[in-house]
Amino acid sequence: MQRVKGMRDFSAEMMQEKNILVNKIKQVFDIFNFKQIDTPVLEYFDTLTKQGTGGSEIEAQTFNFLDFGKRRVGLRYDLTVPLARYLSQNTNFSIPQKLQRFGKVWRYEDTKKGRYREFCQYDIDIIGSKDQSADAQILFCAYCVMKNIGITNFAFQINNRKLIDGVLNYLGIALDQKIGVMRTIDKIEKLNKQQLLNEFHKYGIEKIQANEILNSFALTGPMFDVLKSIKKRFPIAEEPSVRYGFLELEKLAEYLTSYGIDKVCKFNLSIVRGLDYYTGNVFETTIKEGKQLGNVCGGGRYDQMLGTFIGKEIPCTGISFGVDRLLDYFIAKKNEKKAKKKNKMNKNALFIANADKEHSLTAMNIASFLREKLKRKKTIIETEITGRNLSNQIKYASNQNIRYVLIVGRDFESLGKITLKDLEKHTEEKISSDLKKIYE
Amino acid sequence: MQRVKGMRDFSAEMMQEKNILVNKIKQVFDIFNFKQIDTPVLEYFDTLTKQGTGGSEIEAQTFNFLDFGKRRVGLRYDLTVPLARYLSQNTNFSIPQKLQRFGKVWRYEDTKKGRYREFCQYDIDIIGSKDQSADAQILFCAYCVMKNIGITNFAFQINNRKLIDGVLNYLGIALDQKIGVMRTIDKIEKLNKQQLLNEFHKYGIEKIQANEILNSFALTGPMFDVLKSIKKRFPIAEEPSVRYGFLELEKLAEYLTSYGIDKVCKFNLSIVRGLDYYTGNVFETTIKEGKQLGNVCGGGRYDQMLGTFIGKEIPCTGISFGVDRLLDYFIAKKNEKKAKKKNKMNKNALFIANADKEHSLTAMNIASFLREKLKRKKTIIETEITGRNLSNQIKYASNQNIRYVLIVGRDFESLGKITLKDLEKHTEEKISSDLKKIYE
Repeated sequence: MQRVKGMRDFSAEMMQEKNILVNKIKQVFDIFNFKQIDTPVLEYFDTLTKQGTGGSEIEAQTFNFLDFGKRRVGLRYDLTVPLARYLSQNTNFSIPQKLQRFGKVWRYEDTKKGRYREFCQYDIDIIGSKDQSADAQILFCAYCVMKNIGITNFAFQINNRKLIDGVLNYLGIALDQKIGVMRTIDKIEKLNKQQLLNEFHKYGIEKIQANEILNSFALTGPMFDVLKSIKKRFPIAEEPSVRYGFLELEKLAEYLTSYGIDKVCKFNLSIVRGLDYYTGNVFETTIKEGKQLGNVCGGGRYDQMLGTFIGKEIPCTGISFGVDRLLDYFIAKKNEKKAKKKNKMNKNALFIANADKEHSLTAMNIASFLREKLKRKKTIIETEITGRNLSNQIKYASNQNIRYVLIVGRDFESLGKITLKDLEKHTEEKISSDLKKIYE
Repeated sequence: MQRVKGMRDFSAEMMQEKNILVNKIKQVFDIFNFKQIDTPVLEYFDTLTKQGTGGSEIEAQTFNFLDFGKRRVGLRYDLTVPLARYLSQNTNFSIPQKLQRFGKVWRYEDTKKGRYREFCQYDIDIIGSKDQSADAQILFCAYCVMKNIGITNFAFQINNRKLIDGVLNYLGIALDQKIGVMRTIDKIEKLNKQQLLNEFHKYGIEKIQANEILNSFALTGPMFDVLKSIKKRFPIAEEPSVRYGFLELEKLAEYLTSYGIDKVCKFNLSIVRGLDYYTGNVFETTIKEGKQLGNVCGGGRYDQMLGTFIGKEIPCTGISFGVDRLLDYFIAKKNEKKAKKKNKMNKNALFIANADKEHSLTAMNIASFLREKLKRKKTIIETEITGRNLSNQIKYASNQNIRYVLIVGRDFESLGKITLKDLEKHTEEKISSDLKKIYE
């Protein structure tokens, strides 16, 4: 029996790392007062494919089927569209709402690219603020997460959908070419020049214009430098979309500077984001030592999607952490370290062994007693559960990295003594069966 | 737009309770050295419906569909069958393995009964021990969980599939009637006498025999009392299944007594469990004050399922906590309490307000500074993100239960002062803008 193609299992070692990572992210989200909610993994397909949500590209990747009641349902491809559906059914919320959501999402990705069809996202969103200070808070919070999980060498790549649209207008791109052109711009850092020109050709854009596009959207660097270049190169006064985008980015840069994180924030005109619902700023995050991981945290402003669900416009902005990508990064780093040094045994762990079958009940009794006594210390306490002999019990403890073994045998009745073995130091001693030595 | 029928959303209040509950369960599982693993929510339908897994009743409730590659996949209906599939792909594990898994499962249940089609389970399993001490450890661990989450008034209802089978043989039930009869026995506590007789009639069991069955399987009570009754009423010597079941329960009772939890363990011959894969002891758990919740934690021994996946027999035993049912219990209890007393404000929370737009950047700057200073205390720190005026900022803080508001205004530049408002005591004072009063 095989696992489903394109999905993966998480071993005990991986899950241990994953739990640490998720808890560290949550810690920061909690301090920023984002409240966690949760929604079902299934949504009606109509919800997931509604005009103004993910768009046609993601729709084609959405697992969907008719349920027993003949309604078409789909596995969510992100946590943002379900959020909009949730809010549309719980409309008496105060504004602004700050919400966090954690969970799995599914996309029928090309497995050849090393992508998984099931992966975890951890999102925050601010609902009900059109102010750029909301975007700034989202990015500052993401910055605090990166610091808390121990990643320092990263940069936020920021762009603005209005600006992109305005520049495309300025370059004379027709309305029906825009989506194709934006998709190609999104690949600027992945494809080489000739591949990009071929892509543009597909959308009816020929070489001279294509070069103009590539030139315009190659603009990237420190925030205020890029703002200066935009002012110089594009017609802020005449083209309203350029102007709105510029003003939003300018305000955002000011706020990010107030938060003191301007050094890790870059404006990068080639950042587009794949989903249709973005309307303003868009964000991506790259780790310098982990470029092959791609974007570990991305998002942006979507001022219109909620309106299509609720019927009145409610501006939103948010960001999503790709938990599994971050996990891969940490596991790779951990394996490097592991190769260098040997694991130490867990000194907060104890195996209560029996010297023979006659002492198995006493061993359980002692385990129960010590569990109560050592509850606060969270000591791992194991007893025998397969009826193995003593040497196999000790072998198991050693494999489990459990440092201490208590051996309950005949001395227990005759002398009131139990043997305490230290598997790291390879020593043993007889201790009193009141076990005060263990729990005091 | 509606949520999918039969599923539910979790509000911020519910998720807060759920996180507390799940963490308390995990705490105990960790101390018992169960290692967490995770598998995809989708499995091939062949895996989920393999001979000797869940059985036909659950198969009919399993959400399933053809994926884009024309393979039939299904949403898992429990966490045990995916575990068997996982182990069959990772066969070089040492024995015993002690594993924990947490996640959502899906069943197309009848929504009229107040059941949800998506719900959370938290499971532990011991793989590779046929000894009753493994079952005892599972139950002792479950006992420690119940204590840790604060439920005291509960009982484990324990039975044995071999014993059930033996008693059915003794009563002369034909092989092809057994499944129907077992399903009816499973309903002894839910249906009245006449309804039960009607059910039996469906399976060709007439009144006299039906009464005999009901009489036999009504046996319940303290473990050693029930063992005595079994010895008296059923032919232990002649009917091997009765004998094997009896011996397993006898050994289990002895171990549970050693762990000191015999008072909460009852033997109850009417406990059957719905899934096909059980082969030995089966467990359910009822909370006395929450009978309408049904079974909050159930499981048992399944010695054959792994064999059908791996090709060699590997005995297993485990238990599953119904996290959502427990959550409903705690939320109901909390709401009772809430009705009695008013919420206190959160004194570890601070809103940095601006007196006017000109001070919004300074407020962000201060927020950034205090977040760093108060990181260890996990203080919630909020700033304005919608451009509201001061009184609306204060109203928001109050709605969020944030007790303290810092107001940054003109005094900041002219006097080096900031106003600190206490929304609970309705007092305010001017403090120095070095903010030492806040973080020291």
